[in-house]
Amino acid sequence: MATGTLRTFVCSFSIIFLFKLNVFFCQQFSVSFQQPSDCGVDSYFDISSLSCVKCGPSQVSSKSGLACECQTGFRVLVSNGASITCQQCPDANQGVTQDGYGCIRCSGSAGENGKCQCPKGSVLVERDGNGNPLNESRCEACNATEPAFSAPDRTGNRCVRCEDSFINSSQSSHKSCVCGTSNVQAGGMCFPSNGLPTSVVPNVIFSRLANSVLSAWFSNFMYSSAAACLLLSNRTACQSLGNMCVMNMHSFSTINNDACGLYNTVYRATAAQGSSQDVSYWRANMPWLYYGDQLGLASRIIQNEPLPVGFSFKGAQKNTDIELRAAVYSVRGEFLRWESIGGGNLQLCPDTLTRQQSAFTFGTAYKQSCVLSVSELLNGYPEPVFYDVFLVIQKPQEDKHLLAVPLLNINQQFNGQFTNEGSNMNNWLLTRRLMLVDTLSGRQNSLSSSPGVIRVASNIKIGFQLVPNTQKGQVYPPLMTVTYSDIPVTDPTTQTVTVSFSLEYTMDQEEARVKTDVSMNNENQFSTIMKFLVFYAGDLANVFFFITVGTGLYWLIFFKAQLFVSVLLPLPAQEERFVVYVGCAFALKTVQFLHKLFVQLSVDIFFIDWERPRGKASKHVEGSGEAKSQASSVSIWRTYFVANEWNEIQTIRKINPTFQVIAVLFFLEVVGFSNLALRDPSSNLRRSPEAYTPPYSLILRHGVASAMWLCIGLIQIIFFTVFHERFVEDKIRQFVDLCSISNISVLLLSHRCFGYYIHGRSVHGHADTNMDEMNTNLKREAENLCGQRGLLPNSDTQTFQISITNRLRVKYDRIIEPINRRSGPSRLVDASANPCEQSTKAYHTMNRFLGSVIDHAHREMDYIVKDKLLFERLIGMEFIEPLDKSIFYNDDSHSFADVLFYGNEAVLLIFDTLFFCVVDLGSQNFILATVLTYLQQLVFRLIRNGMGRRNLASKTLVDKRFLI
Amino acid sequence: MATGTLRTFVCSFSIIFLFKLNVFFCQQFSVSFQQPSDCGVDSYFDISSLSCVKCGPSQVSSKSGLACECQTGFRVLVSNGASITCQQCPDANQGVTQDGYGCIRCSGSAGENGKCQCPKGSVLVERDGNGNPLNESRCEACNATEPAFSAPDRTGNRCVRCEDSFINSSQSSHKSCVCGTSNVQAGGMCFPSNGLPTSVVPNVIFSRLANSVLSAWFSNFMYSSAAACLLLSNRTACQSLGNMCVMNMHSFSTINNDACGLYNTVYRATAAQGSSQDVSYWRANMPWLYYGDQLGLASRIIQNEPLPVGFSFKGAQKNTDIELRAAVYSVRGEFLRWESIGGGNLQLCPDTLTRQQSAFTFGTAYKQSCVLSVSELLNGYPEPVFYDVFLVIQKPQEDKHLLAVPLLNINQQFNGQFTNEGSNMNNWLLTRRLMLVDTLSGRQNSLSSSPGVIRVASNIKIGFQLVPNTQKGQVYPPLMTVTYSDIPVTDPTTQTVTVSFSLEYTMDQEEARVKTDVSMNNENQFSTIMKFLVFYAGDLANVFFFITVGTGLYWLIFFKAQLFVSVLLPLPAQEERFVVYVGCAFALKTVQFLHKLFVQLSVDIFFIDWERPRGKASKHVEGSGEAKSQASSVSIWRTYFVANEWNEIQTIRKINPTFQVIAVLFFLEVVGFSNLALRDPSSNLRRSPEAYTPPYSLILRHGVASAMWLCIGLIQIIFFTVFHERFVEDKIRQFVDLCSISNISVLLLSHRCFGYYIHGRSVHGHADTNMDEMNTNLKREAENLCGQRGLLPNSDTQTFQISITNRLRVKYDRIIEPINRRSGPSRLVDASANPCEQSTKAYHTMNRFLGSVIDHAHREMDYIVKDKLLFERLIGMEFIEPLDKSIFYNDDSHSFADVLFYGNEAVLLIFDTLFFCVVDLGSQNFILATVLTYLQQLVFRLIRNGMGRRNLASKTLVDKRFLI
Repeated sequence: MATGTLRTFVCSFSIIFLFKLNVFFCQQFSVSFQQPSDCGVDSYFDISSLSCVKCGPSQVSSKSGLACECQTGFRVLVSNGASITCQQCPDANQGVTQDGYGCIRCSGSAGENGKCQCPKGSVLVERDGNGNPLNESRCEACNATEPAFSAPDRTGNRCVRCEDSFINSSQSSHKSCVCGTSNVQAGGMCFPSNGLPTSVVPNVIFSRLANSVLSAWFSNFMYSSAAACLLLSNRTACQSLGNMCVMNMHSFSTINNDACGLYNTVYRATAAQGSSQDVSYWRANMPWLYYGDQLGLASRIIQNEPLPVGFSFKGAQKNTDIELRAAVYSVRGEFLRWESIGGGNLQLCPDTLTRQQSAFTFGTAYKQSCVLSVSELLNGYPEPVFYDVFLVIQKPQEDKHLLAVPLLNINQQFNGQFTNEGSNMNNWLLTRRLMLVDTLSGRQNSLSSSPGVIRVASNIKIGFQLVPNTQKGQVYPPLMTVTYSDIPVTDPTTQTVTVSFSLEYTMDQEEARVKTDVSMNNENQFSTIMKFLVFYAGDLANVFFFITVGTGLYWLIFFKAQLFVSVLLPLPAQEERFVVYVGCAFALKTVQFLHKLFVQLSVDIFFIDWERPRGKASKHVEGSGEAKSQASSVSIWRTYFVANEWNEIQTIRKINPTFQVIAVLFFLEVVGFSNLALRDPSSNLRRSPEAYTPPYSLILRHGVASAMWLCIGLIQIIFFTVFHERFVEDKIRQFVDLCSISNISVLLLSHRCFGYYIHGRSVHGHADTNMDEMNTNLKREAENLCGQRGLLPNSDTQTFQISITNRLRVKYDRIIEPINRRSGPSRLVDASANPCEQSTKAYHTMNRFLGSVIDHAHREMDYIVKDKLLFERLIGMEFIEPLDKSIFYNDDSHSFADVLFYGNEAVLLIFDTLFFCVVDLGSQNFILATVLTYLQQLVFRLIRNGMGRRNLASKTLVDKRFLI
Repeated sequence: MATGTLRTFVCSFSIIFLFKLNVFFCQQFSVSFQQPSDCGVDSYFDISSLSCVKCGPSQVSSKSGLACECQTGFRVLVSNGASITCQQCPDANQGVTQDGYGCIRCSGSAGENGKCQCPKGSVLVERDGNGNPLNESRCEACNATEPAFSAPDRTGNRCVRCEDSFINSSQSSHKSCVCGTSNVQAGGMCFPSNGLPTSVVPNVIFSRLANSVLSAWFSNFMYSSAAACLLLSNRTACQSLGNMCVMNMHSFSTINNDACGLYNTVYRATAAQGSSQDVSYWRANMPWLYYGDQLGLASRIIQNEPLPVGFSFKGAQKNTDIELRAAVYSVRGEFLRWESIGGGNLQLCPDTLTRQQSAFTFGTAYKQSCVLSVSELLNGYPEPVFYDVFLVIQKPQEDKHLLAVPLLNINQQFNGQFTNEGSNMNNWLLTRRLMLVDTLSGRQNSLSSSPGVIRVASNIKIGFQLVPNTQKGQVYPPLMTVTYSDIPVTDPTTQTVTVSFSLEYTMDQEEARVKTDVSMNNENQFSTIMKFLVFYAGDLANVFFFITVGTGLYWLIFFKAQLFVSVLLPLPAQEERFVVYVGCAFALKTVQFLHKLFVQLSVDIFFIDWERPRGKASKHVEGSGEAKSQASSVSIWRTYFVANEWNEIQTIRKINPTFQVIAVLFFLEVVGFSNLALRDPSSNLRRSPEAYTPPYSLILRHGVASAMWLCIGLIQIIFFTVFHERFVEDKIRQFVDLCSISNISVLLLSHRCFGYYIHGRSVHGHADTNMDEMNTNLKREAENLCGQRGLLPNSDTQTFQISITNRLRVKYDRIIEPINRRSGPSRLVDASANPCEQSTKAYHTMNRFLGSVIDHAHREMDYIVKDKLLFERLIGMEFIEPLDKSIFYNDDSHSFADVLFYGNEAVLLIFDTLFFCVVDLGSQNFILATVLTYLQQLVFRLIRNGMGRRNLASKTLVDKRFLI
């Protein structure tokens, strides 16, 4: 209040001082809100000022509330545009004329509105033929008999010819406009008694609500429509009757006096009229609603003969347009127009024309759904309209033909059963005629009352099915499936309904599925599968993986690139099996990967140092056995260096794994390859943001993603092996070279009696030298002045796969025992012995032992060097068991890398690919897949590095602190 | 053809055999396409069978084409629902009655349709009062004089009271229904002569097309509306006149007989009627169109007083609803209803209600635009409707008030000038009343002809402006800006028009901008900026960076988190300056980064080997100078090991840079932090796909992205320094330890006389030992059985910053010269000398020289060890110039890492952040930014590693093959 006063003061202040400027600063152009219903009975709503204004004396507001009119018993004296003046009629002429300007004496009685009234069948006359007003009004009866046949018109002012049906139904001798007692008068017409049931059931069944509504519309017009249709062949009446049957969900039973019962009664009774357009189910003069009720008819209608025109995705004959056209009828049965289906007439969800139109591109899986408010529907659809949908067939050089599109109404009841609900096509009853929103039939008391229940076509689906084995894009006629929702109207402003519109394309996937299943089952037939699971997991996973990738690529290539439509994508529900296969591949690959990891983390490794002490200083202590001073001059640093390098190459790979995920992400999401996985025939990488975006196909996503992984992986492998390793850096070769230069050999035992040997004996005899000598040595070797590095004389082969005898292994294990014991349970250790000293001793023993074995110093543990057979190489097995002598197979391809990540690139790449794809199939999010794949790689790399380092330290006795 | 025959044969074949099944397999339910216009004059379109059907004899199709009617001169004999029978009228009664069922003799002439006609002012009578048909029709003249005042009704069948204006305008002595010669009859009314111009200009100006159309609507109703408004104060007529002015874009000039000229004429002439609702510009009975034409009025209307209710984003008083309400009028001037603006009534683009409604949430920058087809508009908007828009003000405990929303019509012309086009508010003329689509005024010949030009409100913008310095969310009244497009209709099916609807929120950004600019300018005032650019680039970049990040965060926090609205985001155009600042920061940071990189790649480094030969063997050759055998027993492998490690730590960082980019991507795109950068008040990370997505704000994107980078970077740094380096692995400390264990010191000179020294003299005297001794040494040290590692006795400090004298540097350069020369131009080299030998010699010389310097063996190149002053540490400078003695500053914080990536984490992190942000600002794509940032990191890491390795090899003489 205080503020108000203050403001008023300031305002007045401003006005005083600023009046000269003719500007009222404080004026906010603010008005109070009033609407016509706010004005009382003696006020009207002024449409100019948007406020209520009082009426003049003796006046009340009109029905609309936008003007004033004279009270009952008053006539308009002066009417001057905006206002009127009223005057009371004198007692003599108490009635007011129909136009309101005069007073008149009523011959009959005056009505409540103060105007004269006449009895039924009479007209009110207030002026003579020339328009002169009478003193007293007259009521003149209309002559109903021949030849006049007259009755009052709608306003009750003139006698005009009455409705034909009154004349026709009266007995021929006494033709008149009176509907005889033996006749039935309904809907403004007169019908003779006929075959129709005399009492009808004007109920609309809302079966989903277990509720039926006594419909005002049905009460008013059902009987008359049926009668006019049957007796007069009135086409509009027939359509109107058909519409009522549609509003009742095409449901029929043995009852013959509900909407569809009446339709069928008339249909049977008019069999003599013949059929329309040579369609046996389409009775002349009547709408076509049913396809007959024989069992199994549905499949014969839908899957009998393909459309005469095929669809094609590409090329000169590109044809992806689905042209639908509908004959549109009003609820009264009037034909409104032919409408092209497209601009949202079946699509209740609002959207731009472009996007709505993309529904009708063949092959685009279209689904649009949204939530509509009930009040919106009530305003937008006061009356239902009805669509008879046809597919336009335009063959070259021919006229347009229309093919009736059958409708599967899920809500239809046949003898109380929802026969169309199941997937058994033999039970289906196909129909025609569709409506979208029905707010009319649910009005109970009068047509102007608000409806108690409304019905909305909440789910419309148009399905196309490909003809099996077609190469020319032939499809069967489409089928429309519609589901209606029944909504009891309680609070329109808050109530909502979800509606959707979709197009679905299917083909018989049995064949494709069988193919995949067969290829799977062939593998699955191994009865002892569980036993060999771990060993065969990798191969099985590969089989699964390549079958799924192949399937994905198959769909990608065949669906997206097909000229004539010959395949269509599996529906989302049909993709589940595929996802299961991918999951199997991933699970098996994980088993293989973890197994490999475990083998790598427990590999036996030993560095054999060939360096012997040199110079005079060392000589004179020789011969006294393993004296400490004997070894003193051989430095351990070369071994540290080699071990350190081995530690570093554990997780190098043939690709850069991080680059791999980032590059895949880049191509999928930035370049736009992910758009290839959309369910439509387009193969564009760029989409306009205005265009409709169909949903993704999981199979296509898997196809695109895995293809991308394999491609980029392959390119990386080629780049690294062909370019990088040759011209920049080859870590594996560097390591072998380092072994040679540092005079250290490496023995790797990945299995008990199988492993690898890298021969690193220096060709210079010594490696533990100063810089001058080292440089000289390197230079000599570069100039080919010294021998070759190979194990055999005059050979270059330094790397071998070895298959050792059991005897050698037993000896190895015995020597290594103190080292292993160090990490074993402590209670076994002899407390007195220094464990560290023991293991150092074991190290020296092992070094000497292995050196002598390589030097052929042990007769009983000798070995031979040979080449692997081609077939042995191919299947990765050895045929000869090393019983007597160990076997060293020449191996120039550095296959010792098999105990590193480097040698298992295929496993890792496929594992990463599957990991990426599985995450994506679960989340449909390539970014998340990228992030998780990166983390997976990081974690496994850390595990491999950390635990590999620990294994290396414990097996080679190199202190962990030097493995950095 | 052949196929056709075959098919027919198969079809017949099927029919014969399957007839029993009552199924016609070959029947495709296909019909030919016909429409009413296809049927000739003697056929009608059967709405049941959807085909053309011949009419009966003597019949033609009716106007609609859906039924038959009798030819001219024929009457209906029998009408039986579907069909009629016609009979020719006898010669005596050649006229057909109005109802078509009878024959009658015409008193006057018969019309072309064969029915009787009467002259003007008369009615046709064919039946008597009781409905009995007459033999001959009569024409009865209506009595126009008092008291009858009658005229024929619309059908010409009865005399009724004539229009008031005819009676009122006739002279009072001879009142009648005849419009006198001195009067003007127009639009079905009769007006006395008046102040209005007698001839009007019924043209609609389409100024954008330089075209005007003579409008049928204006021709028919403009004069009568104006006259009825002026003379009769007919409110509907006034509204209709106003609508015409709106259809003419509110344009007015000195011409007083176009639509707005007439409006203004009436407005001025009715000044005596007063104003509506206390708004001075709102004349009673008339619509309110103008806010007056004084200069400067616009700004006073828009920016004078804030709305009485403030907006608030959060909390209990949350108020973000913008409630607009419009009074809607038909083109005829009828008041239709009050409409709540929201459900798409101003939004021409179709969309779901939810999304359309989100336009009216305060603070959400809403923009929806789409392309509409002209044919859609023609069908959807046969007549324009007109909106008077108000803002609803609902104060607590008060009635609703409405505030008029002013309209800025860009198309408005004032004396031929588009005054509203510019941004100068003083020239603006504000108006009211809006229409969306006008397909009516462009109809030229008749109201049913198709329009030549249509006009569409192609751009509607509602702008809110914040009151400067408000804390309570006060805003000025909104302003609607509308731009109309004029489209000449040539081919409606292909023509399109782009329409958009937007809400814009602005505040005076001057203040914020000035703040930023001032902080920038303070830095820019350095006059010698170019000179120090390289050195100060980093600091300048930091200033720019933190100001932009601060600005981004400021907007993010203050805009998104504000309770009462006090700030609004800058518009996209206002963000340009911000982008420039970010660009500057990036450019400067790049300069700093490249400079750092260059310094690191050219650092001088030397490994000092403290190891001396031991054992008797070495003793007896000592003393003979640099004899080869003297050094023979000191192995180079420790140096190799240390150099190799140094090579490896070159690019390690305090964070994992790849994890950084992936984590940032994860949080931005998967978790959804990018949604914070949308221009709306919501701070949800998840958005429903159905919800409206506003555009992004570049400032907010920068704020979110850089904050995310800095946060995750900081967390990583904390994790690595606090947890990882302490409990897992600290590479820098490992390197220092390695130096100690391997008995090697490192001298680093990053600048000519400044650098770092790592003291690595082994506490055991010797390091070149075998495994036993090495283990013993490590154990002894672990048990604290030997001395400390520091340079000074009894100290632990191994790392120093050094500031050396010029003399020392000159000596260093002289010794190093042969090494450097190796990579220099070859002509300078003495061809006879072996360069390799020379440099090995230099290596040994340098090793001895530096060893002796560290051992204080050179008096003239001595050094002192001291602590750095606190202030020296803070500003990173030294106060004392090393003139006489070199200075070794104790440095426990391993600042030698400054020559590695490790010591420059801040520079790298900010550089990466800016790189990411700059890519994102350019592309608005976080994924692309991620990919490019990753590549950038990869490339610079490769460069740093590769060239750093080369530098290391050339400076330390360690063969590149050992740096692996």
